[in-house]
Amino acid sequence: MFEEDMKKFILDVPDFPRAGVVFKDISPLLARAALCRRIINVFCTQAKGKVDAVCGIGNRGFLFGPGIAQGLDVPFVMVRKYGKLPGKTITQSYQLEYDEATVEIVENSIQKGWRMLIHDDVLATGGTAEATAQLLTRLQVVPTQFSFLIELKFLKGCEKLLAYSRDIISLTTY
Amino acid sequence: MFEEDMKKFILDVPDFPRAGVVFKDISPLLARAALCRRIINVFCTQAKGKVDAVCGIGNRGFLFGPGIAQGLDVPFVMVRKYGKLPGKTITQSYQLEYDEATVEIVENSIQKGWRMLIHDDVLATGGTAEATAQLLTRLQVVPTQFSFLIELKFLKGCEKLLAYSRDIISLTTY
Repeated sequence: MFEEDMKKFILDVPDFPRAGVVFKDISPLLARAALCRRIINVFCTQAKGKVDAVCGIGNRGFLFGPGIAQGLDVPFVMVRKYGKLPGKTITQSYQLEYDEATVEIVENSIQKGWRMLIHDDVLATGGTAEATAQLLTRLQVVPTQFSFLIELKFLKGCEKLLAYSRDIISLTTY
Repeated sequence: MFEEDMKKFILDVPDFPRAGVVFKDISPLLARAALCRRIINVFCTQAKGKVDAVCGIGNRGFLFGPGIAQGLDVPFVMVRKYGKLPGKTITQSYQLEYDEATVEIVENSIQKGWRMLIHDDVLATGGTAEATAQLLTRLQVVPTQFSFLIELKFLKGCEKLLAYSRDIISLTTY
């Protein structure tokens, strides 16, 4: 089973980045080149013919996002936390548990009407992916598919994303 | 010319991230999947048979680093600014113009004796790449090759790295 193969190389790190949180560490997975190529192939198979571009959410969405875009032969677009992208950008703020965060995109890195794959390593509460979908929708880009290496089901992030697309790919779930 | 092809898709953004700095924006380049695949092939050709692993410096070293590692069929290892990697890590601090910064690596993501390719998008002052080389050397990993999409020659970052390896690849220079 592919999911079981992947899970062998995803480590639980307790109390990171803060007490009570169990972090999913993909370092061991990144050390397996053949498995990484297989992951990209699976993502590409799921997205083939459905999307015009791939948007990776920084920073760990950059690890597989460009490979997926290259496999699909479509543009790769960066979305990052506020303040890290140059030039004319557009932002979208969203609520965290005790705070607020903002995602940002370079305005001329996207084209109206594109069907977009939104990719990140982990789907947790879904706040960042949802804000990315909101940002793209404002720019008349269609969030057509979401894809993640890992989905933390108990956090129900999926529910936030269903309003944008029912096409949500998670290679492993916990 | 490959360098000229790349330079068409690297934009100058004045006064980012602060006044007086001209930022090299690779967003347009990331939109060209075929060119990105070609870039990875060139990096792989330069590193083939010389390295046992590829280390990407976060965050933009994650955009091409994993693809290079997959092309070479070797492990990919993350190096990041302090506080973003989980588990047992090792750090190396270094001086910036008015400040100090720290890079960090997950201890068991590397193996003693490895010949390492250190990859990032831009070679500027070379501080981060040098600190990464110092960190790896302390861990008995050999910095065998450095590779960058862009080298800002006038900042002379190259001079800092020559103490570790004379094998420094820059696909474009300014």
